[in-house]
Amino acid sequence: MSDKKNIVYITRKAHFNAAHRLFNPRWTDEQNEQFFGKCANKNYHGHNFDIYVTLKGVADENTGMVMDLRKLKDVMHEFVLDKIDHKNINLDVDFMKGKMASIENIVVEIWKQLEPHIENGKLHCIKLFETENQFVEYYGE
Amino acid sequence: MSDKKNIVYITRKAHFNAAHRLFNPRWTDEQNEQFFGKCANKNYHGHNFDIYVTLKGVADENTGMVMDLRKLKDVMHEFVLDKIDHKNINLDVDFMKGKMASIENIVVEIWKQLEPHIENGKLHCIKLFETENQFVEYYGE
Amino acid sequence: MSDKKNIVYITRKAHFNAAHRLFNPRWTDEQNEQFFGKCANKNYHGHNFDIYVTLKGVADENTGMVMDLRKLKDVMHEFVLDKIDHKNINLDVDFMKGKMASIENIVVEIWKQLEPHIENGKLHCIKLFETENQFVEYYGE
Amino acid sequence: MSDKKNIVYITRKAHFNAAHRLFNPRWTDEQNEQFFGKCANKNYHGHNFDIYVTLKGVADENTGMVMDLRKLKDVMHEFVLDKIDHKNINLDVDFMKGKMASIENIVVEIWKQLEPHIENGKLHCIKLFETENQFVEYYGE
Amino acid sequence: MSDKKNIVYITRKAHFNAAHRLFNPRWTDEQNEQFFGKCANKNYHGHNFDIYVTLKGVADENTGMVMDLRKLKDVMHEFVLDKIDHKNINLDVDFMKGKMASIENIVVEIWKQLEPHIENGKLHCIKLFETENQFVEYYGE
Amino acid sequence: MSDKKNIVYITRKAHFNAAHRLFNPRWTDEQNEQFFGKCANKNYHGHNFDIYVTLKGVADENTGMVMDLRKLKDVMHEFVLDKIDHKNINLDVDFMKGKMASIENIVVEIWKQLEPHIENGKLHCIKLFETENQFVEYYGE
Repeated sequence: MSDKKNIVYITRKAHFNAAHRLFNPRWTDEQNEQFFGKCANKNYHGHNFDIYVTLKGVADENTGMVMDLRKLKDVMHEFVLDKIDHKNINLDVDFMKGKMASIENIVVEIWKQLEPHIENGKLHCIKLFETENQFVEYYGE
Repeated sequence: MSDKKNIVYITRKAHFNAAHRLFNPRWTDEQNEQFFGKCANKNYHGHNFDIYVTLKGVADENTGMVMDLRKLKDVMHEFVLDKIDHKNINLDVDFMKGKMASIENIVVEIWKQLEPHIENGKLHCIKLFETENQFVEYYGE
Repeated sequence: MSDKKNIVYITRKAHFNAAHRLFNPRWTDEQNEQFFGKCANKNYHGHNFDIYVTLKGVADENTGMVMDLRKLKDVMHEFVLDKIDHKNINLDVDFMKGKMASIENIVVEIWKQLEPHIENGKLHCIKLFETENQFVEYYGE
Repeated sequence: MSDKKNIVYITRKAHFNAAHRLFNPRWTDEQNEQFFGKCANKNYHGHNFDIYVTLKGVADENTGMVMDLRKLKDVMHEFVLDKIDHKNINLDVDFMKGKMASIENIVVEIWKQLEPHIENGKLHCIKLFETENQFVEYYGE
Repeated sequence: MSDKKNIVYITRKAHFNAAHRLFNPRWTDEQNEQFFGKCANKNYHGHNFDIYVTLKGVADENTGMVMDLRKLKDVMHEFVLDKIDHKNINLDVDFMKGKMASIENIVVEIWKQLEPHIENGKLHCIKLFETENQFVEYYGE
Repeated sequence: MSDKKNIVYITRKAHFNAAHRLFNPRWTDEQNEQFFGKCANKNYHGHNFDIYVTLKGVADENTGMVMDLRKLKDVMHEFVLDKIDHKNINLDVDFMKGKMASIENIVVEIWKQLEPHIENGKLHCIKLFETENQFVEYYGE
């Protein structure tokens, strides 16, 4: 007999389209433009963001699942996507108020939104793509 | 001997990240919101746009190329990408002034920007992805 | 002034997951297995199908769109995806009754389902991927 | 001199196309349909599954490789793909007999098939995509 | 009754990995380096090429297929891939002897290799990707 | 108050196109051909390599970033891509001299090139794709 617990990591992907700009409100416009370049454009730019949410857990004997991914999808929509999809991250998103809109900060705030609503398994990782060339991962550390 | 002319269609891909919103300035806010839904968000949203520019022509005997794709890339940057990348399509892009910022309209205006600068071959098609789920093609018709 | 009509080709992608098998009911089991190989497996196999529906038309002045892609998405769901997603194409799909479940045949039958419901623009092409390595296109010819 | 051991993680991807359904044989049809929804369809549905097998090890001095990936590919074919590709996971696959056909369960059973046949390096992770939107990882825990 | 002939375009994808360099043997090294830049590197560079072969035809009533794609795959391997995969296009490939190794030229020569061996349907298009950013299409014109 | 340190893992992707061959200089040609097969081709073959460089760190309060990814991109170009892109890995790349050109070895040598130049955060992982079907990861162990 195996002594493994059969711990699996299950991931659901979603996406949202949003506008943002990078700027530090404590800096002058010139400082922002010098540091952030075109990412500081005052009229914003935007991205198709891809988000991957990973849970860690053991499959339930009755369902074969750690958590029903359709429920996870619902949680992702209610607490994250409905607030950020087709929005301006700097202006419209309550959980980003007072935070710089970098993906490093966004992923940490999304974690805070999701974690209280994961009923089965444990939130393990959130991976957020800004473009296919740059992305960030956060493990709740 | 073959009587073929060896006409090929050569494509270069690029991308840009931009903000936009859909709205008709002749409509009220309510009408815009009713028709365009979340795409009308006043604070804008955004996308990673992918653009494919296709030329039709015959390869030059000395170079093996219809047009040097590095030159095509330069043309795409000078006349399109430098104007639209990390910009707000509604506010910042000269060639979109007075046009609704739908991909159907954007692709036609990009054609007008590029066509005068294609030196070898003939501009055949521009394909513009707004998301991986929706895109538009224009053949100059 | 340009004499172009600004005819564009606008595409919406969707996907469905379905089971099927290839077999000719007029052939014996041996003939089917010999010709279709593992694709004839009596207990079925399946795919993640990707479908791209392309309309040809001119953008409306008030909306900037040929057809509202959200409406096109609804039409695709009502007349195709709700009937075929998470189904067995050989057994469950009304519009495939009596047809062999090859992608060559599926794409033609999907065209018949969609064409009567395209209100703006004209149905131009349906492209159906069975895997990333094989796909079929149909232009209503 | 570096004190690193140069431990690398080398991955080989493959894919298989299979039919399955989700259902609990201890539940009634109504219970299954209520919980699993369209995934419980009695006539099955299917997917293009992508599988990534990762080994951990140190490159051999003579070959520059942890394990010859062509041999790993052969092992994957002999012990997994030949048994599951173009099959019905609920009916045809010996190593899934008596198991619910969820990806959480499939990935654990595939691990058991492969592990005894990894000659060089150590089986580190199996990642299994059901669709591009949902996948599972298993590290043998 | 429909008067359509149900003409479909069926495509099979494959890939090959090869080395090449761009240079004109009638030019000096300096001229080649000046024009082709790093693509002229004397020791070669290389690519993962993706090739899509499209046939035009009508599905056979007995098979539901224009041409058995496994047979098409075999033809692609015998007459193209076995000659070019893991090869140096400038030195090793018989059908490229005396031709500059640009994708514009490669796609035309591959057409000549494949066309005589298409038994069902008609060779319609070959699409060849050098990178995800540049590709060429040839329709036998 | 949270006791998390908000440690994130930020990744930048790049690519390069290069030629290489697998062979052991201590073996005869026959031995090399027997073991490495077509990968030993004396005239080389090539690939489009994708490289992902991941840093671990905490976002700076003033910039919202672990390390400015444009600077990371510059470092990747100066110390890796400018040396290996459009090159022959066996003949042209200084940091691969005397090493077999397997991806297991390449990824370790790239780590040595990059690590001294990471100013913010800590180099965490380098992932190198040779094809979409095989890739290697190295964590500096």
